[in-house]
Amino acid sequence: MSALLTDLYQLTMLQVYFDRGMNRTAVFEFFVRKMPENRNFLVAAGLEQVLEYLESLHFTEAELDWLAGCGRFRKDFVDSLADLRFSGDVAAMPEGTPFFPDEPILRVVAPLPQAQLVETRIINLLQFQVMVASKAARVRLAAPGRLLVDFGLRRAHGAEAGLLSARASYLAGFDGTSDVLAGMKWGIPLYGTMAHSYIQAHDSEVQAFEDFARSHPAASTMLIDTYDTEAAARKLVPLAHRLAGEGIVINAVRIDSGDLAAHARSVRRILDGGGLPAVKIFASGNLDEYRVQELVAAGAPIDGLGVGTRMNTSADKPYLDCAYKLQEYAGVARRKRSEGKATWPGRKQVIRSLDGAGRMTGDLLTMAGEAAAGRGLLEEVMRDGRRLAVSPALAQIRRHALEEFGRLPAALRTLAPAPAYPVAVAEALHALAREVDSRTTTD
Amino acid sequence: MSALLTDLYQLTMLQVYFDRGMNRTAVFEFFVRKMPENRNFLVAAGLEQVLEYLESLHFTEAELDWLAGCGRFRKDFVDSLADLRFSGDVAAMPEGTPFFPDEPILRVVAPLPQAQLVETRIINLLQFQVMVASKAARVRLAAPGRLLVDFGLRRAHGAEAGLLSARASYLAGFDGTSDVLAGMKWGIPLYGTMAHSYIQAHDSEVQAFEDFARSHPAASTMLIDTYDTEAAARKLVPLAHRLAGEGIVINAVRIDSGDLAAHARSVRRILDGGGLPAVKIFASGNLDEYRVQELVAAGAPIDGLGVGTRMNTSADKPYLDCAYKLQEYAGVARRKRSEGKATWPGRKQVIRSLDGAGRMTGDLLTMAGEAAAGRGLLEEVMRDGRRLAVSPALAQIRRHALEEFGRLPAALRTLAPAPAYPVAVAEALHALAREVDSRTTTD
Repeated sequence: MSALLTDLYQLTMLQVYFDRGMNRTAVFEFFVRKMPENRNFLVAAGLEQVLEYLESLHFTEAELDWLAGCGRFRKDFVDSLADLRFSGDVAAMPEGTPFFPDEPILRVVAPLPQAQLVETRIINLLQFQVMVASKAARVRLAAPGRLLVDFGLRRAHGAEAGLLSARASYLAGFDGTSDVLAGMKWGIPLYGTMAHSYIQAHDSEVQAFEDFARSHPAASTMLIDTYDTEAAARKLVPLAHRLAGEGIVINAVRIDSGDLAAHARSVRRILDGGGLPAVKIFASGNLDEYRVQELVAAGAPIDGLGVGTRMNTSADKPYLDCAYKLQEYAGVARRKRSEGKATWPGRKQVIRSLDGAGRMTGDLLTMAGEAAAGRGLLEEVMRDGRRLAVSPALAQIRRHALEEFGRLPAALRTLAPAPAYPVAVAEALHALAREVDSRTTTD
Repeated sequence: MSALLTDLYQLTMLQVYFDRGMNRTAVFEFFVRKMPENRNFLVAAGLEQVLEYLESLHFTEAELDWLAGCGRFRKDFVDSLADLRFSGDVAAMPEGTPFFPDEPILRVVAPLPQAQLVETRIINLLQFQVMVASKAARVRLAAPGRLLVDFGLRRAHGAEAGLLSARASYLAGFDGTSDVLAGMKWGIPLYGTMAHSYIQAHDSEVQAFEDFARSHPAASTMLIDTYDTEAAARKLVPLAHRLAGEGIVINAVRIDSGDLAAHARSVRRILDGGGLPAVKIFASGNLDEYRVQELVAAGAPIDGLGVGTRMNTSADKPYLDCAYKLQEYAGVARRKRSEGKATWPGRKQVIRSLDGAGRMTGDLLTMAGEAAAGRGLLEEVMRDGRRLAVSPALAQIRRHALEEFGRLPAALRTLAPAPAYPVAVAEALHALAREVDSRTTTD
C-alpha cells in the first residue's frame, strides 16, 4: 500500500520532526475506547495486514516527486523520506483473541517520525477487521453447528473491505466466503450458488436447474425463490431423481426471500416427501446475528446461512471508538487529557486470568514488564522492522479464536447485553497517570 | 482490480453459459430499491471507477492457473476466460446527478457472461460512492459557506473505502480531504493540521506551536485541545503576534473535543480580544450532518469543519438496498418476481422535468427509446467496451453536483424527512411487466 495513504497531518508533523531532529523513540498503542452497544467482547484481527504494511513501507519515486512539487514541504525533508523504512518493534495480541476497551492490542515502538506516519493506516486496518471479526463472532455464537458463509463482498465498502471482511469473518468462525479472490489469497473455503439472473435468462426454470447440475455434476445448490419457492422445490424433486440416475448430484437449495423459516419448513416437507432428505437447505437475505438466532430458535430446518451486508459493514455500528495514541516519547510517559478522551500513559500489558476450567475471570491493565499473575496477552512480533516468526496460517488463527470464544464467561457468549467483563487498572498505572499530569507544563 | 474480486457464483454460472453457448446479449441495470431513512435524495457516483474496471477487465495467467487447479471448473472453460474482455455498451447518469429509488443509474448491455461476471464489482463500486456522496451532500447542505474537509480515512473500511470516500465527498460538495493519496490521484485539495501526539511529544505546548509554525511559515492550524482549550488559545495570542513580526502566519486553530460551540465562542473571544480576528476556527470530532446543522444553527463561530467517520461509513445507514438486475436477455424482457424484490423489466430511461425556474418537478421511469417530454438522464458512455468520451474532471463533476442540488425541491434540501419526490412509472412499463409475467413459464 502506498505510503501516501495517510492523513496530510502526518507529513506536516514529520516536516517539523525533521527540522527539529525529533527522532527519539516513541511508543504508540492502539486500543478501543468504548465497547459498542450490542457487543459483549471484541476480537483482535488485522495484525497480519499491519505487519505486511510496516515491512513494505516506503515512498516511491513518483510519490516523492509529487510531494516535492506540491508546495507544502521543503526539498531536504522530502529527500529524507526516500530512505524511510520501518525499523521499529511491534508487540500485539494474537489475532482471534477476545479483548475489551482500554486494552492495547498493538504497541509500536519506533523513532517518532516512523511511528507517527503509520498511524492512519494502522487504525484503518485494525478498526475494520476488529469490527467485522467481533460482529462475525456473534453470528457464529448464534448459529452453532450451522454452515456460515460470508456473502457480503458486493455491499462491502470497496474492494479491500470485501477482501478483509472475508478474512475477518472466517477468522471469527465463519466456514467460508463467496469472495473468489479471498479464496485464492488465503485459502478460505469458497461457496457459491447461482443468481436470480441465471434463472431469468432461461425460459424455463427447471431447464435452468438441469443445465446447472449438468455443468456441476459433483454438487450444486439450486436457487428456488425467483418465481415461487414451493413450486420450484416441487419441480426439483423429479429432476433430482432423474439426474441421480446419471450420477449427477443436486445437494442443496437456496432460499433468498420471504419468510425464510416458513419457506424452509415447507421446502423441507416437499424434499423429504419427495425422497430427497439429503438435499440441504441454505438461506440468505438480510441476515445478521439476531435474525440468525431467531431462525435457529424457531427450529427452522436450515443447514447453512449466507450472511453478508449487515455483518461485513457491521451495520448496527459501522465504526469503533478507537485510537492509536502516543504513550511515551524519549523515555518519558505521555498521555492525552482532552475532554472525554484521556488515555492511560506508558507501555502497557494486559494480564488475563483464567479459572481452573480455563474460563476467563478478569483482565489487569498494567505497565509492561511489571510482574503479575496470569498470561500477558501482548507478544513481541516484530523487532527492528523484521518479523520474529512466520505468521500462523489463517485456519490456525480461526482455531485459536474458536478456542478463545470457549473461554469467555457464558454471559458474554450470548447476544443479550452482558455485564462488562472485569478489566482492572493496576495501581502503578494510576500512579503513572498522576505523575504525568503533574509534570505536564501549561506554559 | 483482479477479475477474481467477484462472487464464486458468477464463475459457476459462466461455466454453464460456456457449456450451453449462452452468449447472447443481456441487459442489466443498477438501481436502488428503497430510499434509506433520513435521506431525501441519492447522488449518482462511482461511474468513473466502473468504467476503469470494465476497460481493464481480464484474467491474469496466475488467476487462470488458480481457477484451473481449484477443482471446480473444466479446463476448456478456464481457457476461454483468457480472452475475456468487456466488449459491451454502458449508459449511465452523469456522476453528481440526484436520483431516486427504482431509477437505474447504470445500464450494461453485453454478452451474458460478461454482463454477469461484473455484477459484484459494479455493485461494490456504485453502492459505496452513491452512499457516501448522498451522505456528504446532506452535510454540504447543512453547512452553507463553511469549509468542509473529509477526515475519515482512518475509520473508513479499508484503503479503497478511504480513497473513494474522499472522492465521493468532494464530488458532493466537500472542499477537500486529509487523504494524501486522494490528493495525488484526483487533485482533491488537501487539508491537515497536527495530531495530539505532536503536542504530547513536546514538553511545552507553546513550543510545539512555535516549532510547527516555523516549519510551515505560510500557514498553520494549531490543535488547541490537548490539555486545556482556552488556556492554549491564550498562549497562542502572544506567540502569533511575535511570529507575525517574522512573517510567519498562524491562520487557524482546531478544536477536537468537548462542547465545540461553547469552546468556539470562548476561543473566538480570546482571539478577537487578543487582536487576532483573522485566525479562523476549525472544529472536528464525531460530526455528521445533524451536529453540523446544530453548530450552524447555534451560530457557533466555526469557519471550517472536519467530518469523518460518520460521513464516510454512512454510519446511520452503512449500506443501500440496491441491485444490478437482468432486465432483458436475447431480446426478451425479463424480471424477477421474488417476494418484496420484484423489478421493472426491459431497458429503461429516466425522464426528468423541470419548472420554468429550473427546479425539478418530477421524474418518469419509462422504456428507453420512448418519446417523452423532458431530459433523459441516462447517457451512453461506453460502446463496444470503449469510452465515448474522456470523463469530466472531478472538479467539474462537483460543480455539476452543486448545480443539481440547487434544482432539488426545497423540502428535499433540508435534513428533515420530506415527502417522496414524484417518480411516475410509464404505462408502457406497466404493460411490459404484465406481458413478462404472463409469459414466464412455471414448468
